[in-house]
Amino acid sequence: MADYNRYGYGGGYGHGPPPSAPPAPTSAPPPSSSSSYGYGYGAVPVAFPPGTHPDVERAFRAADRDGSGAIDEHELQGALSSAYHRFSIRTVRLLIFLFNDPASSSPSRMGPAQFVSLWNCLGQWRGIFDRYDRDRSGKIDSRELTEALRSIGYAVPPSVIELLIANYNNGVPSNGALDFDNFVECGMIVKGLTEKFKEKDTRYTGSATLTYDGFLSMVIPFIVP
Amino acid sequence: MADYNRYGYGGGYGHGPPPSAPPAPTSAPPPSSSSSYGYGYGAVPVAFPPGTHPDVERAFRAADRDGSGAIDEHELQGALSSAYHRFSIRTVRLLIFLFNDPASSSPSRMGPAQFVSLWNCLGQWRGIFDRYDRDRSGKIDSRELTEALRSIGYAVPPSVIELLIANYNNGVPSNGALDFDNFVECGMIVKGLTEKFKEKDTRYTGSATLTYDGFLSMVIPFIVP
Ligand SMILES: [Ca+2]
Ligand SMILES: [Ca+2]
Repeated sequence: MADYNRYGYGGGYGHGPPPSAPPAPTSAPPPSSSSSYGYGYGAVPVAFPPGTHPDVERAFRAADRDGSGAIDEHELQGALSSAYHRFSIRTVRLLIFLFNDPASSSPSRMGPAQFVSLWNCLGQWRGIFDRYDRDRSGKIDSRELTEALRSIGYAVPPSVIELLIANYNNGVPSNGALDFDNFVECGMIVKGLTEKFKEKDTRYTGSATLTYDGFLSMVIPFIVP
Repeated sequence: MADYNRYGYGGGYGHGPPPSAPPAPTSAPPPSSSSSYGYGYGAVPVAFPPGTHPDVERAFRAADRDGSGAIDEHELQGALSSAYHRFSIRTVRLLIFLFNDPASSSPSRMGPAQFVSLWNCLGQWRGIFDRYDRDRSGKIDSRELTEALRSIGYAVPPSVIELLIANYNNGVPSNGALDFDNFVECGMIVKGLTEKFKEKDTRYTGSATLTYDGFLSMVIPFIVP
């Protein structure tokens, strides 16, 4: 019997779609009169999705110093640090993995379309963080995390919540809490694993049959060094 | 139809049991005339399994400066660095997670029995590394990794091997290779995930049905920060 409320289907999206969902890949639009080409930083015309906020474009172009149209992990770290947070390189790698097209020819670099989608997504996580940090401690504890994940459609059981919190607190779950960096990482991991799981649970039964190879292939990309 | 050669059952153990298998938990033996108690470093009698090599005891006792009978991640990093390698803190955390009893009251610290089992296991990984580094490059490439994992009973498909290598080379699989640190981490991850998977595939069919909660609980501990 399918339970459509697993993973929050059938309601509960308090903030629109879950925040780490990149939009459908935007194939590069043909050069137009868009302001996207007006900066003159580099030789390669860089294609931003229509409607991209000028600040986001500016952040990308400033990070892409050689004007190659793609930024590496350190450039991404720098680009995000002024607007959001100085994420750890580990988190930055996870973000690149989650937002890049798996078939990308340069999996360690990020192009403008993915950058815009990541930027917007981080804005949503920031909003969720602020909203669910109920006691204004600047950190998200296990109760707040449970509510925050539920608000975007993920019914994560208490044991998994404890595991997540413990992971970011040297294995000690009690009284642990997450700063924004770890909150984003946690949220993205839950989101990413759930999406992968759902691909194998197409009828939303809440369980899925995986082959050994499929299981390893699904999980190992999340175990980034 | 059960295929007992999945995961290498039914043969292929070139080196005895897979090297990251901790022995059955050793409950602390009663104090005896064993040399284990003769060092006088600390106040707490520390119980080593019978037959522990004196060098291993010495390494543990030297690391356990306050004589508490347990060492933390930085102490473990120090203890292993003289004999094996200066592992990254990330790898050290993974080792503690994999070797500690899940029900341990201090999941971020390691006691003597677990330390001995880890030490012996690393000796085996060292032997495998040296044996399968066929071209003596000091690194393990994808072909060498495939053979090394096969020798201890894991038939890991090429796509997963590429993923593992890429993970440790900024997402770029081509020509990537693993140093000893990353090789141990890779090996332990494959071993750990396979063991978890096998728990759900008790008839060794090569596939397993997982619930969403079970899947998250199984995987998240490997995604250590
Ligand atoms: Ca809080
Ligand atoms: Ca080699």
